[in-house]
Amino acid sequence: MPHITSASKGVFVIAVTPFTDTGAIDMASIDSVTDFYLETGAEGLTILGMMGEAPKLTQSEALAITKQTLTRTGDKPVIVGVSGPGLAALGELTKAVMGMGAAGVMVAPPMGLRTNEQITGYYSQVIQTIGTEVPVVLQDFPLATDVRLSIGALGQIIEAHPSIVMLKHEDWPGLSKISDLRKAEADGRRRISILCGNGGIFLPEEMFRGADGAMTGFGYPEMMVEVCRLCDAGDQDRAQDIFDAYLPLVRYEQQPGVGLGVRKYVLAKRGVIASAAQRNPGTPLPPAAVAEVERLLARQTKRLHELS
Amino acid sequence: MPHITSASKGVFVIAVTPFTDTGAIDMASIDSVTDFYLETGAEGLTILGMMGEAPKLTQSEALAITKQTLTRTGDKPVIVGVSGPGLAALGELTKAVMGMGAAGVMVAPPMGLRTNEQITGYYSQVIQTIGTEVPVVLQDFPLATDVRLSIGALGQIIEAHPSIVMLKHEDWPGLSKISDLRKAEADGRRRISILCGNGGIFLPEEMFRGADGAMTGFGYPEMMVEVCRLCDAGDQDRAQDIFDAYLPLVRYEQQPGVGLGVRKYVLAKRGVIASAAQRNPGTPLPPAAVAEVERLLARQTKRLHELS
Amino acid sequence: MPHITSASKGVFVIAVTPFTDTGAIDMASIDSVTDFYLETGAEGLTILGMMGEAPKLTQSEALAITKQTLTRTGDKPVIVGVSGPGLAALGELTKAVMGMGAAGVMVAPPMGLRTNEQITGYYSQVIQTIGTEVPVVLQDFPLATDVRLSIGALGQIIEAHPSIVMLKHEDWPGLSKISDLRKAEADGRRRISILCGNGGIFLPEEMFRGADGAMTGFGYPEMMVEVCRLCDAGDQDRAQDIFDAYLPLVRYEQQPGVGLGVRKYVLAKRGVIASAAQRNPGTPLPPAAVAEVERLLARQTKRLHELS
Amino acid sequence: MPHITSASKGVFVIAVTPFTDTGAIDMASIDSVTDFYLETGAEGLTILGMMGEAPKLTQSEALAITKQTLTRTGDKPVIVGVSGPGLAALGELTKAVMGMGAAGVMVAPPMGLRTNEQITGYYSQVIQTIGTEVPVVLQDFPLATDVRLSIGALGQIIEAHPSIVMLKHEDWPGLSKISDLRKAEADGRRRISILCGNGGIFLPEEMFRGADGAMTGFGYPEMMVEVCRLCDAGDQDRAQDIFDAYLPLVRYEQQPGVGLGVRKYVLAKRGVIASAAQRNPGTPLPPAAVAEVERLLARQTKRLHELS
Repeated sequence: MPHITSASKGVFVIAVTPFTDTGAIDMASIDSVTDFYLETGAEGLTILGMMGEAPKLTQSEALAITKQTLTRTGDKPVIVGVSGPGLAALGELTKAVMGMGAAGVMVAPPMGLRTNEQITGYYSQVIQTIGTEVPVVLQDFPLATDVRLSIGALGQIIEAHPSIVMLKHEDWPGLSKISDLRKAEADGRRRISILCGNGGIFLPEEMFRGADGAMTGFGYPEMMVEVCRLCDAGDQDRAQDIFDAYLPLVRYEQQPGVGLGVRKYVLAKRGVIASAAQRNPGTPLPPAAVAEVERLLARQTKRLHELS
Repeated sequence: MPHITSASKGVFVIAVTPFTDTGAIDMASIDSVTDFYLETGAEGLTILGMMGEAPKLTQSEALAITKQTLTRTGDKPVIVGVSGPGLAALGELTKAVMGMGAAGVMVAPPMGLRTNEQITGYYSQVIQTIGTEVPVVLQDFPLATDVRLSIGALGQIIEAHPSIVMLKHEDWPGLSKISDLRKAEADGRRRISILCGNGGIFLPEEMFRGADGAMTGFGYPEMMVEVCRLCDAGDQDRAQDIFDAYLPLVRYEQQPGVGLGVRKYVLAKRGVIASAAQRNPGTPLPPAAVAEVERLLARQTKRLHELS
Repeated sequence: MPHITSASKGVFVIAVTPFTDTGAIDMASIDSVTDFYLETGAEGLTILGMMGEAPKLTQSEALAITKQTLTRTGDKPVIVGVSGPGLAALGELTKAVMGMGAAGVMVAPPMGLRTNEQITGYYSQVIQTIGTEVPVVLQDFPLATDVRLSIGALGQIIEAHPSIVMLKHEDWPGLSKISDLRKAEADGRRRISILCGNGGIFLPEEMFRGADGAMTGFGYPEMMVEVCRLCDAGDQDRAQDIFDAYLPLVRYEQQPGVGLGVRKYVLAKRGVIASAAQRNPGTPLPPAAVAEVERLLARQTKRLHELS
Repeated sequence: MPHITSASKGVFVIAVTPFTDTGAIDMASIDSVTDFYLETGAEGLTILGMMGEAPKLTQSEALAITKQTLTRTGDKPVIVGVSGPGLAALGELTKAVMGMGAAGVMVAPPMGLRTNEQITGYYSQVIQTIGTEVPVVLQDFPLATDVRLSIGALGQIIEAHPSIVMLKHEDWPGLSKISDLRKAEADGRRRISILCGNGGIFLPEEMFRGADGAMTGFGYPEMMVEVCRLCDAGDQDRAQDIFDAYLPLVRYEQQPGVGLGVRKYVLAKRGVIASAAQRNPGTPLPPAAVAEVERLLARQTKRLHELS
């Protein structure tokens, strides 16, 4: 199966992990949600992301989900999140998922790294552990990791490790980071793929700044596909029109903690997963939030109709 | 001049601090921006907020700005932020600004407080320092203070200190906190005013949940005034229409760090402050960001026209 | 094999994880260091502690080490650290090690918990996950976890969950917490065992305040055994004499990061592990530090001779 | 009055701020404790340090204390802590205290700085604000500031700003940082003075590594003076003997929060300040702690007698 490269682009949806109402993994819903993501036009998937429910899985469950997803995606690339506190476990998991056919692995810096030297040193250890043949996505997500990656340190890491082919960009604010990276490339540094996160809440600006696509979750991934397509085609205004129609929900779904409940509610409502249940500990969406989401969905439908 | 009370409502704009291009305080722009805020329909102002440029002021400058603002606002209430690491300085500043005619003071918990007992103990010390006659706004802003105030601890503070008459609500996600507070009041606890922050990015939902208004900054405060007015009038759909038209800019201006540059750029462009300059250290808005803001403004104008 | 109870006392040594110079687990050294700990008079062991090298192990390695240790300790109790970001993995590991004969599990709160409600809620979820039959040690170690457990929240947890039979006490400063816990017990709350950490650097004071022993690592565990024995016997001065003789090294070994290198250096020098090597990433003790340790050891030997 | 230079050495005691039992500043005790510090052999003083009670002072109180201290110290150098969240206030305070005759100012990085670039940028702004003529002490105290200064970033700051003549070293663990700095100087970088903090708990090792003295507080500053003198004279064993005699108390006084109460208790007992009171909020030393301190003091006296 294909590996990701520094030329990868488009939308890689961060896949939800479907559970039954009793907390068991729902393999049938893995199939249906995978199909759904690809049918919306996603270029690939990312699974076992750190902000979702991957930390709630046992190791064998994580591997079972990976296998199920890879079987279903066929020749579409799947990136697997392998971030964790220890290098040995990270190496073991990387070997396992690459052996199953993953397209690459995603590694966020562990909490507690502070100085530039600690962060660049960490990625050297990661590459030493997993080898230079595995394509790596560097996840830059300070709101979750509390690790701040300066443009200088990021540049050093990119220059030192050619197997890091992609940046999952979710610094906030982070627009200037995209511009700075592209400028360094214009000045001669090797290019990397930049896919953006943060629920897509800056997707039009990110694309105009030079991003290659999105890697995030949202209940309507077709929005991200369409916005990326229109930006690539140079139709900035139409891209922003589509984006704006979904923005009230994007904003609502981006709330930390609550957001995953919203996403699963929307996906269950759309029929692509059987249950919106989260494994314990998980916050079921309270009735007041359900009402707010429903209101936003009704308005979104109306606004999209006006635009069509 | 009037004090705030637990019945205060409407929009209290967090005022920017205008500087000249060389970093001096621009007293004339304080007058013009104060007039502007009140002309848009704001109920009052809040100055020396912790996320703006108040920490860049000397103590005498802070007092001079307070005096200038209070002179200009007449009988409209002005809340003054007095948060700081030490109680003696907080007490001294409170006494000074209340003597000048402030309507109340706003106090955020200092960084480093963790347990419920530390936080409730801190507010007891504050009230002991400033006395029980000064109306207090409790600022709950974890993204900036890194202090997490549970609904339980918040309730204890409200019950212990009647002079805390208002909550500046900017927990994120924080919608359920509003519902929980209102429910406790329905069950018998004394009412407090809840004004919401976070750049207004959840203002419609917050108003529907029971908030009394907004206390935040935004380049177009008239949006907040109109949304609050429509929500009070029960016209939820029109409120959300107006809100949605401004949402792309609200989102853009809410970026930490960059946001203040956007706000000052907009206010300078609108002619209500003479310069968008920030005192050192401040990030001037880079050209790429200026272009993005201008694009959003043009679209905003067009969308508002469609709605009118 | 025996379970720990609220009456457990004495020294539970936090065992090092021995590696060969190439980073493989050194099973023979697990045997020899286990024998050594028990021969010094330790009441039991604690393995897979969060501050050591447990995070560097794969899951199968962690289980292999547990099995090897349990085989060697015979009827002496072994507590196994099972802290981790996810409840499912924590539950799976608990079940596995209790099935192998562990005496109990140790659980620290995950980084990021802030309010009292979050912390008490977490321990409810843990007990719900592993059941009420497994004896649990609550590890209160804010320097490592950044979680602050107030005496109020700790009391609520103790009252709610009888299966939490022991506190690994390493708050800093934490002496008053011991006094507060013992006072609450004098006032009627059920008793729990309190074993102290932090490298033993407050062991005499902790014992005088009512602790039941130590649970920490140190290159000379016989010091902790002797200090606990003398404190139990009421010979405070002799206890402090012995403690003071080792204190310069205790202090040196308590340095975060460097400390583990010191401990392994001492244990290798004493012949109880074959190599002082740490698995990657680990800081080998630099020559200047080796010289400092050797100097402290020579002085320690001399001082102990004077005291004998 | 003299300025500190990169050749400054010896002990600069971090002075306590004496209050009366009602929380007023005790000017007479400022005189007596200042005399006491200098009589013990201290080379100079440091006042308004960030870990003491400086944040509890109003600005006018801080200036009054500075004036009183400078009047009393005569030609001995006094360093004044000016750290704070804002550059304008920092600049104003620096100007005021240098005008009064301070020997230099001490600046710690504000909480929240993360990347190397943020930290080096901050010190550039500080020097730009206060000018290049004021001697500066860089305070590297991660336990308090949560800012991690890598040896690389520290080197860049030293090279960029010749007016930074001294490092207050209290990284932990930090011994290798001293060795690294001295090595860089041996390789050609300009020398800076290194005075060590952390209550002196690593003072012998720090001196052997190349430190120039101590800058910290302790109830018995004569210990630090004597250890530094003996280390300078090459008598390492005698230095460590003296140090070890005080170590149990050093360790006890180093407890965060509690430590200041211990220090003031000891100084009041020694008759150099009138009251051990701390201004609100401050923790009075509980009876159990008083008993522990008294026990340590009695043993310390006995041990020093054995060594004399």
